[in-house]
Amino acid sequence: MVNGEFLSQLAAVVDDKTMVAGADIGAAHSVDTSGEYPCLPELLLRPGSTEELSAIIKLCGTHQQPYVVQGGMTGVSGGATPNPGEVAISLMRLRGIEEIDENAFTVTARAGTPLEEIQQAVAVKGLSFPLDIGARGSCTVGGIAATNAGGNQVIRYGVARNLILGLEVVLADGTVLTSLTKVLKNNTGYDLKQLFIGSEGTLGVITRVVLRLVPQCETFTTFCAVNSFSDVLQLFRLSNQYFSGAVSAFEVMWQDYMAAVLAAGEDLTSPFAEQYPFYVLLEIDVERPDGAMEWFENGLAQALEQELIQDAVIAKTDSEREKLWRIREGIGEVVAQMGLAVHCDVAVDASGLEAYVTEVERNIGEQFPDNQLLVFGHLGDGNLHITVSANSEAEKTALYNIIFSSAARHGGMISGEHGLGSLKRDYLSYTRTEAEVQWMRKLKQLFDPNNCLNPHRVLG
Amino acid sequence: MVNGEFLSQLAAVVDDKTMVAGADIGAAHSVDTSGEYPCLPELLLRPGSTEELSAIIKLCGTHQQPYVVQGGMTGVSGGATPNPGEVAISLMRLRGIEEIDENAFTVTARAGTPLEEIQQAVAVKGLSFPLDIGARGSCTVGGIAATNAGGNQVIRYGVARNLILGLEVVLADGTVLTSLTKVLKNNTGYDLKQLFIGSEGTLGVITRVVLRLVPQCETFTTFCAVNSFSDVLQLFRLSNQYFSGAVSAFEVMWQDYMAAVLAAGEDLTSPFAEQYPFYVLLEIDVERPDGAMEWFENGLAQALEQELIQDAVIAKTDSEREKLWRIREGIGEVVAQMGLAVHCDVAVDASGLEAYVTEVERNIGEQFPDNQLLVFGHLGDGNLHITVSANSEAEKTALYNIIFSSAARHGGMISGEHGLGSLKRDYLSYTRTEAEVQWMRKLKQLFDPNNCLNPHRVLG
Repeated sequence: MVNGEFLSQLAAVVDDKTMVAGADIGAAHSVDTSGEYPCLPELLLRPGSTEELSAIIKLCGTHQQPYVVQGGMTGVSGGATPNPGEVAISLMRLRGIEEIDENAFTVTARAGTPLEEIQQAVAVKGLSFPLDIGARGSCTVGGIAATNAGGNQVIRYGVARNLILGLEVVLADGTVLTSLTKVLKNNTGYDLKQLFIGSEGTLGVITRVVLRLVPQCETFTTFCAVNSFSDVLQLFRLSNQYFSGAVSAFEVMWQDYMAAVLAAGEDLTSPFAEQYPFYVLLEIDVERPDGAMEWFENGLAQALEQELIQDAVIAKTDSEREKLWRIREGIGEVVAQMGLAVHCDVAVDASGLEAYVTEVERNIGEQFPDNQLLVFGHLGDGNLHITVSANSEAEKTALYNIIFSSAARHGGMISGEHGLGSLKRDYLSYTRTEAEVQWMRKLKQLFDPNNCLNPHRVLG
Repeated sequence: MVNGEFLSQLAAVVDDKTMVAGADIGAAHSVDTSGEYPCLPELLLRPGSTEELSAIIKLCGTHQQPYVVQGGMTGVSGGATPNPGEVAISLMRLRGIEEIDENAFTVTARAGTPLEEIQQAVAVKGLSFPLDIGARGSCTVGGIAATNAGGNQVIRYGVARNLILGLEVVLADGTVLTSLTKVLKNNTGYDLKQLFIGSEGTLGVITRVVLRLVPQCETFTTFCAVNSFSDVLQLFRLSNQYFSGAVSAFEVMWQDYMAAVLAAGEDLTSPFAEQYPFYVLLEIDVERPDGAMEWFENGLAQALEQELIQDAVIAKTDSEREKLWRIREGIGEVVAQMGLAVHCDVAVDASGLEAYVTEVERNIGEQFPDNQLLVFGHLGDGNLHITVSANSEAEKTALYNIIFSSAARHGGMISGEHGLGSLKRDYLSYTRTEAEVQWMRKLKQLFDPNNCLNPHRVLG
């Protein structure tokens, strides 16, 4: 139950458009894309400015009223799904690009601005924001910063953390911490923004971001058929040798993933007549387009000669490229039809990857031979998505244990990009030490002593 | 005076090689490369292992014995220069590369390993650690991480923070915080290592690092003569358009800088017969060497046609390249001969840079017409080095004020890479807000409640 005195004082600091209660709150605010454990909040606050948000948060602190911060609701770890008794604060009214600086190569935007809006606005000016994820149309830059999103082009351009130059953040006590700098290099005291990037909104609420842009490159895309996981890894090595730093995406899909995606997506087709154990979507970003297609083709010809790939198609147009990417991003519909399942996104470095995958496949195959296992992901940066159907909550726990304990054994991490949110927070200690977890708790205590700000996310 | 009880207990936790006292302590431990305010410590500790360091630090905390942490002593902000009463802890015995992982593209090294040792060891394997600074022969990877070093290739590869995957850190209470992961993506709880990167050793002592490597590229280098600062900025824009993400270095030198460096360096010569107001050292890193020289030359030809450059030489060999870089890095000898001076490294984004430089040159010219003003730096990332001779401490303060207050007015930061150390800590609030400084203090208090760990650096 939301505190009555809190409610009456709230009315004094927010305007009409900000407060939504009861039946007027849409179901979209009850759960993130995971669909797990939906809970409709009693009260939804949609502040229209940083100042209004600050006043709301300060009041929440005073009344020890817990709240969950929401953006595009595209997370999959339950971070934005309300817990009972929490007020939901949506940042979707804090929307809009404030400045594109073509000289400084930056864009400044409010937290609720969708990623795709940014991508399109900067492309018009010949620039690129080189972070891309399947949820681009709905996810927001605030969410991208708070969750340190990764996505499809990390090998070349890095994760969100590498592309964020400035932040404005509202702290749990209402303080607005502003550092909207556009400089690439800043060693002027502690880099506080790093604390808010990737901490999933548990240390502060991000309200504005300054993002780094890069000059546009020409992209070349191929979809390859591969016979074994060992060949996939060899192909990655060859790509790095031949294309060097030009490799921008190296995505892998297992045959079971391919079959499931093609079955679920109405208008998806495989580029190949035959089936293969593995598929790789490889892209390079090229500064010098002149002669680049020939270079790309020659690189693939080498891979064919070495029998690392069995077949390959090259996208000749933007729409052909899009079609190939839709296979890689088709998992959404599969998941929607899947029901109970675990969705993991472990990160294991390239040296440990083959042994890791072998172990996980064997252990799941032995203990849960009838469950559907789908593996795909950003092999180029060691971030694999592993989805396994489950028949009960107990099975889910057992599956998490198999997948995460193997990650620990092979020097990996339990999450490369999705974060822990509510759904995976209890597994934090699998790949972080006791001392690390203890210091995380101390930071949480320092920044949010009342434990009102996205409580029980990341840390249990 | 070092505490007597501390000394006697110390003998029990350290071995013979670790403790150096009195006249045996070399002058190198009294001051960093700035040469300012040297102070020979009474006691020098050179631990040989993380465990020994942890025991020392724990004991320092117990006895409230302040200490300064030292690496290669190549900093220029006084961060490693002892204050009276401080024990010096040198990490130079924590040296050595532990692993180069060619599949994961990582190198793991102990803090005291020199940068150049890393660069050379990975080059043998066809890999590159793409961070480079003039002090490469003496500076250590621990120092690079602690100070978030930048250097010559930031536009393309980022600062140290972007290249550090894992850290081992000893905290002020002796806790060893270990996260030597090799994964590129890790959203598993708070990214604690970010706190230690760039905080100049004031929150913890870095003892091991895991660094990201990239495939080697072919580098093309040119040294250009330019007529005006406005042309320099235009040339940078053209380079980004033509060479796109291939631009890896864009260094600018003012004529006065060139003259001073040529006068100080015995065997340095200008590549041009005539003098020009500005010089630019431009490099591109190329994945496809085939035809790249022609591409490079064509880009420069465009700049010549547009009269953005007046003349240019291209390095044809490694030794020619080295010769050009020695002009850019020749500042060391100039500084050594200069005596009293301020050495700043402000960061201003490309949009504000021209107005910033104009303002600073005008103000210094008006107030200190006879002082030597040398400007150069990493224009591509907005990080300018400004060195001005001074005749007194009061003049130094006045010069800092001119240079830093202009940086604040033009949206910049008072340090892009050198950090604040002791020499610039009092200027922190010029470009960071009161709320930011307050939260920095809270973090310092949390991690080092006794204020023993590099005290009075960064924060006054």
